[in-house]
Amino acid sequence: MSAVSTLPLSIDLQALRPGMRIAAAVSGGADSVALLRLLAHLSREHGIVVSAAHVHHGIRGEEADRDADFTSRLAARLGLPFLRHDVDTPAHAAAQRETMEEAARNLRYAWFRQLLDSGIADAVATAHTLDDQAETVLHRLLRGAWTEGLSGIHPTLAASRGFIFRPLLGVRRAQVESYLRDLGQDWCEDSTNRDAVYTRNRIRHQLLPALADYNPQLARQMANLATIARDEEHYWQAELDRLLPSLLLPGKPVRGGGRAASTQPGEASLAIEIERLRPLAPALRRRVLRAAARRLGHALDFDQTARLLAMCGFESGAPARREVLSAQLIAERTPRELRLLRTQPESAAAASLPEYTIAVPGEILAPAFGLRLSITAAEALPAATLRAPRSGDRIRLRYTSAPKRLKEVFERLRIPAAERASWPILEWQGQIVWMRGADVENTSPLTVLAEPLS
Amino acid sequence: MSAVSTLPLSIDLQALRPGMRIAAAVSGGADSVALLRLLAHLSREHGIVVSAAHVHHGIRGEEADRDADFTSRLAARLGLPFLRHDVDTPAHAAAQRETMEEAARNLRYAWFRQLLDSGIADAVATAHTLDDQAETVLHRLLRGAWTEGLSGIHPTLAASRGFIFRPLLGVRRAQVESYLRDLGQDWCEDSTNRDAVYTRNRIRHQLLPALADYNPQLARQMANLATIARDEEHYWQAELDRLLPSLLLPGKPVRGGGRAASTQPGEASLAIEIERLRPLAPALRRRVLRAAARRLGHALDFDQTARLLAMCGFESGAPARREVLSAQLIAERTPRELRLLRTQPESAAAASLPEYTIAVPGEILAPAFGLRLSITAAEALPAATLRAPRSGDRIRLRYTSAPKRLKEVFERLRIPAAERASWPILEWQGQIVWMRGADVENTSPLTVLAEPLS
Repeated sequence: MSAVSTLPLSIDLQALRPGMRIAAAVSGGADSVALLRLLAHLSREHGIVVSAAHVHHGIRGEEADRDADFTSRLAARLGLPFLRHDVDTPAHAAAQRETMEEAARNLRYAWFRQLLDSGIADAVATAHTLDDQAETVLHRLLRGAWTEGLSGIHPTLAASRGFIFRPLLGVRRAQVESYLRDLGQDWCEDSTNRDAVYTRNRIRHQLLPALADYNPQLARQMANLATIARDEEHYWQAELDRLLPSLLLPGKPVRGGGRAASTQPGEASLAIEIERLRPLAPALRRRVLRAAARRLGHALDFDQTARLLAMCGFESGAPARREVLSAQLIAERTPRELRLLRTQPESAAAASLPEYTIAVPGEILAPAFGLRLSITAAEALPAATLRAPRSGDRIRLRYTSAPKRLKEVFERLRIPAAERASWPILEWQGQIVWMRGADVENTSPLTVLAEPLS
Repeated sequence: MSAVSTLPLSIDLQALRPGMRIAAAVSGGADSVALLRLLAHLSREHGIVVSAAHVHHGIRGEEADRDADFTSRLAARLGLPFLRHDVDTPAHAAAQRETMEEAARNLRYAWFRQLLDSGIADAVATAHTLDDQAETVLHRLLRGAWTEGLSGIHPTLAASRGFIFRPLLGVRRAQVESYLRDLGQDWCEDSTNRDAVYTRNRIRHQLLPALADYNPQLARQMANLATIARDEEHYWQAELDRLLPSLLLPGKPVRGGGRAASTQPGEASLAIEIERLRPLAPALRRRVLRAAARRLGHALDFDQTARLLAMCGFESGAPARREVLSAQLIAERTPRELRLLRTQPESAAAASLPEYTIAVPGEILAPAFGLRLSITAAEALPAATLRAPRSGDRIRLRYTSAPKRLKEVFERLRIPAAERASWPILEWQGQIVWMRGADVENTSPLTVLAEPLS
């Protein structure tokens, strides 16, 4: 089945076969309402069975109830089954120490996979548009993406049974809205979409319109770049799958031959023979090193990779024998091998955790904490510091009367002792305004958004 | 020789050997003055022999004379030889049908290569900084770059003898200026740097500062992205060098075996066996197609590549048998081969040249004309149209009294008859405001900047 041309929107339904049950993820916003109307319209022609799947995130109170009602009534009017899933996002975010955005997304996709696994649907359609794609690519660029980060939103995600797909990924948001207006179909506006505090919304409402001044085709070109980057990433991944088994060696060599891995819990190490890395192209060397660190749970940034390449003697200067890359990752060089070691967080490495200075407003990648931190403020203010805890730190939690010692906070949050020394904390003007997983009483003019580095 | 750490600026002098004669390209601006002072300072320590090379472009009148004097006096004060090269950029631009920026750059680099070829210098150093790199990458992104376009300014360019290098590519512009202030060294400001009409200057003075709000490290991350993209590009190029000889076939197959090329002057064709393209990863397929078109002098854009991939049957839908990609390039498919043909511009293809609509202000890539066109205006105005000439078109040239028929203009510019049908023209509100190579009397509020697609 190819693109639909009888409609004002040309959407990609290649992946569909007659008889398939498609659950359309519908929030009630314009994009997903258009998706549902389109799929409903196409259902007979393509022999697909459509339902509307709605997640109530338990965040936006009455507005969320309104969206759920709206979506349910829309499904009924179109004669489609309505599937509703209620979750407690704030509780989940607190328990998993995730941001609200992460928690909402994780809960949503967990349910989608559940719909697929249980056989209720054969595929889940989400309503991401070309504008979402452009925003994603631009956001990654602003954060400092590698080429692989530019691959953006993937058109299809495989699940253990069925798949999740985005048929509107080639369509502009403006086309979606004009399609709905032509139909006389209304939709719900999500009030958080307007909130310029979130980087994503600033990119959507301020930056992309400003950039369209330089190039009216920019959104489409960002989407093209995502396609190119995605294809290249597939290629690199296939190359790495071929190369890594012979390049990465576990543990350390032992007398008499063979290799021994550490028996310390939480520790792990991998070694790379420097002479096997040397003949590879620099682009591949860098990817091999990143893949090795990723196996130890660490995302290397550009500078860390450069330090590892220098340790191997591939760059000028005397190669270092040891580098502390982060609280959890150390690199050591022997004459033959470059070894990456994941250490216990309370080891000596924790003491050498870097402090990051962050402009306010500003955004920073803090690989040592595995964090991407963005601080917004209405005006330029003194910089903030992201750092590990210090004895004497005191934090005022929300809904508590007095500042608490850090130890108390850690106990209250049930954070294991081993993780405490490298737990990230943000200090601004002598006050701790954010701490991972804690509900800090932030009386400063700063809004802090933290996301884990993927 | 490794990076210099005794100075406030750490610059890359790896490529230098004692005894080398380095000509520093000095315009008189901050970056190049810092470059000259640094090299002069380092000359004894590194055993290099430094001179100052200055190009007087014959554009900015008294300001340019002032810069030449300033640079000459600076060289004298530092006890360095001063090499001056005077060119007539406007005349060269007119003769070569280039923009002033292109002509200036081409003349400058031609002289640098001349200095190397004649043995006057062993290397030429230019003063590009990390900020120039970030601007270049961002500019390419805004224009709609492929990953390969993101490789930005290269640290070293080989020449037939010697090389051109950029030792300040890791240094921020602000560092350069504070270095000069510490030395009490002044410099010349180039008035065209302030002119927000040029996209490049808008990126420098408006866009990059705005983006630093999202991420203060953006410039450095753009520079990192350039390094990564450059390494990946080397890799792809090596892969293509390996693959292309067996993939690209000249001409057409003839009865009895073998292949025959066209004997028409200006025509050329290349064929690719579809079954040999099929096993390649999509990222490589796309690069093979682009490399094939590049051999015929054409830069394929994303959509053109997508059309070729569809012709090969690698995308959904019935594959087309023939596609007119531009005025000069046609693709045809036989059951076995995809063939690219460069045609005479006056052929049927010229008639099917597309018209491009360009938002004002705005920027567009027009691969059919091999052009990148940017239109600036103080406010949003009706769109302009980039198109091929039509009979009846009249153009008012500067310094002439009446509008002229197109034929007269072509004769005056000595444009061969074969090229006229596909000669690019920009129309706005019924008036022709720009034409390649012509000195059009533009009374509109539009400023037009055209650059060839590389």
